[in-house]
Amino acid sequence: MNFGSDNMVGASPPVLEAILEANHGALASYGGDPWCAEAASRIAEAFECEAEVFFVASGTVANSLALSALVPPWGAVYAQADSHILNEESTAPELFTGGARMIGLPPRHGKLQPDTLHQALSRPLHAPHRPVPGAFTLTQCNERGRVFDAAEVAALAAVAHRHGLKVHIDGARFANAVASLGCAPADITWRAGVDVLTLGASKNGGLMAEAVVFFDRELAHDFAWRVKRAGQTAAKGRFFGAQFVGWLRHGHWLDLARHANAMAGRLAQGIAAAPNAGLAWPCDANEVFACLPRERAEALWATGAVFYEWVPPTAEGDPELGDGMILARLVTSFLTEAAEVDRFIHLLSQE
Amino acid sequence: MNFGSDNMVGASPPVLEAILEANHGALASYGGDPWCAEAASRIAEAFECEAEVFFVASGTVANSLALSALVPPWGAVYAQADSHILNEESTAPELFTGGARMIGLPPRHGKLQPDTLHQALSRPLHAPHRPVPGAFTLTQCNERGRVFDAAEVAALAAVAHRHGLKVHIDGARFANAVASLGCAPADITWRAGVDVLTLGASKNGGLMAEAVVFFDRELAHDFAWRVKRAGQTAAKGRFFGAQFVGWLRHGHWLDLARHANAMAGRLAQGIAAAPNAGLAWPCDANEVFACLPRERAEALWATGAVFYEWVPPTAEGDPELGDGMILARLVTSFLTEAAEVDRFIHLLSQE
Amino acid sequence: MNFGSDNMVGASPPVLEAILEANHGALASYGGDPWCAEAASRIAEAFECEAEVFFVASGTVANSLALSALVPPWGAVYAQADSHILNEESTAPELFTGGARMIGLPPRHGKLQPDTLHQALSRPLHAPHRPVPGAFTLTQCNERGRVFDAAEVAALAAVAHRHGLKVHIDGARFANAVASLGCAPADITWRAGVDVLTLGASKNGGLMAEAVVFFDRELAHDFAWRVKRAGQTAAKGRFFGAQFVGWLRHGHWLDLARHANAMAGRLAQGIAAAPNAGLAWPCDANEVFACLPRERAEALWATGAVFYEWVPPTAEGDPELGDGMILARLVTSFLTEAAEVDRFIHLLSQE
Amino acid sequence: MNFGSDNMVGASPPVLEAILEANHGALASYGGDPWCAEAASRIAEAFECEAEVFFVASGTVANSLALSALVPPWGAVYAQADSHILNEESTAPELFTGGARMIGLPPRHGKLQPDTLHQALSRPLHAPHRPVPGAFTLTQCNERGRVFDAAEVAALAAVAHRHGLKVHIDGARFANAVASLGCAPADITWRAGVDVLTLGASKNGGLMAEAVVFFDRELAHDFAWRVKRAGQTAAKGRFFGAQFVGWLRHGHWLDLARHANAMAGRLAQGIAAAPNAGLAWPCDANEVFACLPRERAEALWATGAVFYEWVPPTAEGDPELGDGMILARLVTSFLTEAAEVDRFIHLLSQE
Repeated sequence: MNFGSDNMVGASPPVLEAILEANHGALASYGGDPWCAEAASRIAEAFECEAEVFFVASGTVANSLALSALVPPWGAVYAQADSHILNEESTAPELFTGGARMIGLPPRHGKLQPDTLHQALSRPLHAPHRPVPGAFTLTQCNERGRVFDAAEVAALAAVAHRHGLKVHIDGARFANAVASLGCAPADITWRAGVDVLTLGASKNGGLMAEAVVFFDRELAHDFAWRVKRAGQTAAKGRFFGAQFVGWLRHGHWLDLARHANAMAGRLAQGIAAAPNAGLAWPCDANEVFACLPRERAEALWATGAVFYEWVPPTAEGDPELGDGMILARLVTSFLTEAAEVDRFIHLLSQE
Repeated sequence: MNFGSDNMVGASPPVLEAILEANHGALASYGGDPWCAEAASRIAEAFECEAEVFFVASGTVANSLALSALVPPWGAVYAQADSHILNEESTAPELFTGGARMIGLPPRHGKLQPDTLHQALSRPLHAPHRPVPGAFTLTQCNERGRVFDAAEVAALAAVAHRHGLKVHIDGARFANAVASLGCAPADITWRAGVDVLTLGASKNGGLMAEAVVFFDRELAHDFAWRVKRAGQTAAKGRFFGAQFVGWLRHGHWLDLARHANAMAGRLAQGIAAAPNAGLAWPCDANEVFACLPRERAEALWATGAVFYEWVPPTAEGDPELGDGMILARLVTSFLTEAAEVDRFIHLLSQE
Repeated sequence: MNFGSDNMVGASPPVLEAILEANHGALASYGGDPWCAEAASRIAEAFECEAEVFFVASGTVANSLALSALVPPWGAVYAQADSHILNEESTAPELFTGGARMIGLPPRHGKLQPDTLHQALSRPLHAPHRPVPGAFTLTQCNERGRVFDAAEVAALAAVAHRHGLKVHIDGARFANAVASLGCAPADITWRAGVDVLTLGASKNGGLMAEAVVFFDRELAHDFAWRVKRAGQTAAKGRFFGAQFVGWLRHGHWLDLARHANAMAGRLAQGIAAAPNAGLAWPCDANEVFACLPRERAEALWATGAVFYEWVPPTAEGDPELGDGMILARLVTSFLTEAAEVDRFIHLLSQE
Repeated sequence: MNFGSDNMVGASPPVLEAILEANHGALASYGGDPWCAEAASRIAEAFECEAEVFFVASGTVANSLALSALVPPWGAVYAQADSHILNEESTAPELFTGGARMIGLPPRHGKLQPDTLHQALSRPLHAPHRPVPGAFTLTQCNERGRVFDAAEVAALAAVAHRHGLKVHIDGARFANAVASLGCAPADITWRAGVDVLTLGASKNGGLMAEAVVFFDRELAHDFAWRVKRAGQTAAKGRFFGAQFVGWLRHGHWLDLARHANAMAGRLAQGIAAAPNAGLAWPCDANEVFACLPRERAEALWATGAVFYEWVPPTAEGDPELGDGMILARLVTSFLTEAAEVDRFIHLLSQE
């Protein structure tokens, strides 16, 4: 019953197999190997477009480097206030952008709304005094477990572009969003106006690999230097490439995500049906946010269940917790089993 | 006959096996797992001391982060002029130190000498106008393939400490140095006055993992934040830990290095004995710098041999190339076979 | 009728006289001159304490450098959301702090409240993932023209200190605050828990000079290097010192501020009494925020009156503008004359 | 007998008069005033070209900001090894360029030679691993007191441009160079291939003002943001403008420089003729580098003469000091009087 995080499990077997395959022989270092080439090509194929692709070791560095290609050091980046990039990635965005301003905007009903973004971008620029709005970054799935569908992404991207901003997606759980929507990856990225994507494998069966995918290829013109300077031009780059090859081929990445989502759906359904418990927001992908009685949560923890208590946010549409209730986050992964979900629900539902 | 670089081969089997072992089950993320703990403990054991240990993805980020713990942004870092950190790591040192000054000093006979360092550090500080000397970093083995023995490291570190500097070693090929000297790892690190070591696995059988080892543990007081901010607090940190466990247990890391060194020695011997060829500097570990007739080099390249032509340096004690001669760098790895060395020598020696 | 800004007028005669006095002879450069020494001593005297004092050319660089002494690059700085430092100083705070996070908090009735600060600081630290709360900066007078009295400063500083933050005041209009409160400068700085003050002369009769005043002198231990690195260690530092000497001696700085405040009070009174107009917030010092009919504003602009339309903020306690109304900011200076105030009110009040 | 530095005296009367003139009335802040406009126009006139002009408070910030417009953070800046920018400006270049690499090259006979620059720029770029050569900066007059004539500047700039670098001049003593050469300012700047100039007033009669002059105006496209972010967009920008107006009108700047140069020439002549003393390098402008017996230097210091002992450099063509000799730097200014020069020589020449 580990619902702590999807980054607490290891890599999926096909990813490991690709690493073993890639281990043979002498290959060009620093990403000039056939595995990186194949991975880039598979990404382009999955997204039905040409793209510039770079590999790095973590989501934090992927996101921050991507933003550095979108804003000058005197620029500003807009994000949903609870986003991972604003709350869990230290000041890496400031480091890698050379000191751009990070600005959080509140969601409504769990998702940042286009009118909120529009209003934030509508005040006078007052050059050169004010940080220059330069980029909008959206987390997909977001930190309240919500997924933005193609129309929602497009609406936000349209506002951003109208004000001259570039659009980035932090796709640490991008596969889960695609699996949730049943759409083409392109539908919620470049077709919806997204310029750059952090495509995360690490949380969904990868070992340690993220791709920065530039749909607007001009934006990548100096990205090789940015990657190198961040210490992410891995000597044995083949192992980044191999992970993505193993992850993408045969649609494995979406199989993994579909399984995790299904387990989360099962969990959400059980919680919604349980007495005294409920969902804080709809479960769109592989994260469930539940309002639970604290004594039930403590009983579950006592049985060895792993999940985190979450600080309840207070934006419009966020749940109000009754007395004795807590907000809990439960995350499923490609390894989650139906039996552990069912056991959790069983234990939760006991008085 | 691939002598291009020791980073052009994959990982050694015991390293991969450890990764596979570590893949099971749900573990704490971000380095809080037993594999990282075991790796740190094995490093402490190998160095016969207590140490603070952090894992990151590349040598570039390891070196730059280590230096960031030693100098303020208005400080200066001294290094041998041809060092990797000054020439092959972009401006990562400036990025991660917040903008410290990097200063190169010329070697004599392939190695930076204590008197050169002393002289550079002897001019007035002129505070607060001049960059403040803050750290000295030494590459071991260095970029002319030389190894500093314990007395040499101690002499340099003594000069550095006398002037108030901290001492770092870029140990991308540290195992090769230990294997070459037949000493204890401690002898050329903390016993010789070294404060921090970048212990590189990537070039010697690792997949993608470097450790930053603080012998002066106080210097590490804020390093967890530095690592996180650099995007190196890997979600699945266990895979860093596992690589080091596989690499260190049963003395595997030194076995790998000894083999590479032996192959380089065999190569060096053959080159020294070949007509028209010679060694630029003594071969101390797993890099051979050879003066070759260009037409011989071209003939070798034509057979598929991989090695790089090197820009001849011009410091005191560096070789003067005769007409038609080039400087070539040849690197051996844990995978290099005696047969390919012998074939190379055979082809080199033909007229 | 220029109410554009207090930085649109020149320097006051006593400040210029001090510059002329200071112009004689050869003196030590880089701040080692008697004028800087006298200025520092006069500041210490005015604040009734020992303090470390540094001079720089602008409020932007003073504020950002001061913050750099309070937070690490992975730290966070909290400020009222509408503060100058967050909105009018580009990303200088990020530049000089090495990339700390800047976070804005909403005011109530024009002023940031202690409970708002407390709540923001109460969430889990989640080290090393989250930016580390490091400093709180308060603008005095603030950007809604409000002044925090000694008890209010102390209450905010107490919250900040309880959470381990250092406290900075952006005192671009500090003299106006002191004049408004009729308190001792110490009462709203170190006696109230303030660690560092940007003491601005530029907006109140100076030519180009700001002082960074460290009440917590330990925090200044490396500030000389920070100042130098920012290019603010002026060769002819005497001219910074002289401005402050001319500004401080004979209580000139407070005379200037009292005059500006009196003119603002006269203006506020007139606006409050005018038909169809009103004050957005109480006028505490030398800034008046008025709700005016747009057609009246346009008529005033047509007569040559200078003042700015302001984007209406929407925090709790902010005024709601009726149809056809605008928010206007009017600033008085040491040069503002009663006659121009009266003429403005006369014109405003006409139908 | 103060020969300590030309920054130890105050401002010249015409500069102060312009400040007093500029003090009247309300003007647009942040450089939008007529004084800045006139100053920019006078600079363009003096240089016989169109140029983008920005004003800042110090040479350090002028130089560093100028370089930030020429190189990316992963770029490298080349300079003569003893240059002020490398030795007396802390790590401001790294701060403002976002972390570019600073590289010093040795002079011959006091001046960096084109072949030295060419050789440094000729090694392989090895993208993206190596810092990318981006800018060359030349100090005029340089730190050995030498002046580069138009042909020398052009030769260096040609090498730089051939390798894709932009060319900057640190003109802290630019007026002295122009006065020394008797050339047009354009001859040693844009006509010789210079892209950007730091035009320093502070050391030659200014109070506190430097101009960054972009001859290649495209390079200035984002410079207003850089200036603001550095805290150099002075609220009362008129005082920067006024200083330059007072300094430039009626050719005052060159009168000041000619006087300082004449005094230095008189001093140099006297030293060359003195027994036991000599010139380290030719005196080209207003700095004299002398080899003096230490006991004579001490006798002079005892009489109250102010000048600095200098660390003897050791590049090709630098003087070798005999036993008991020191290297001394003596700087003259617009205020230096012939009588004090003569008294110095008289005292020097005594046994």
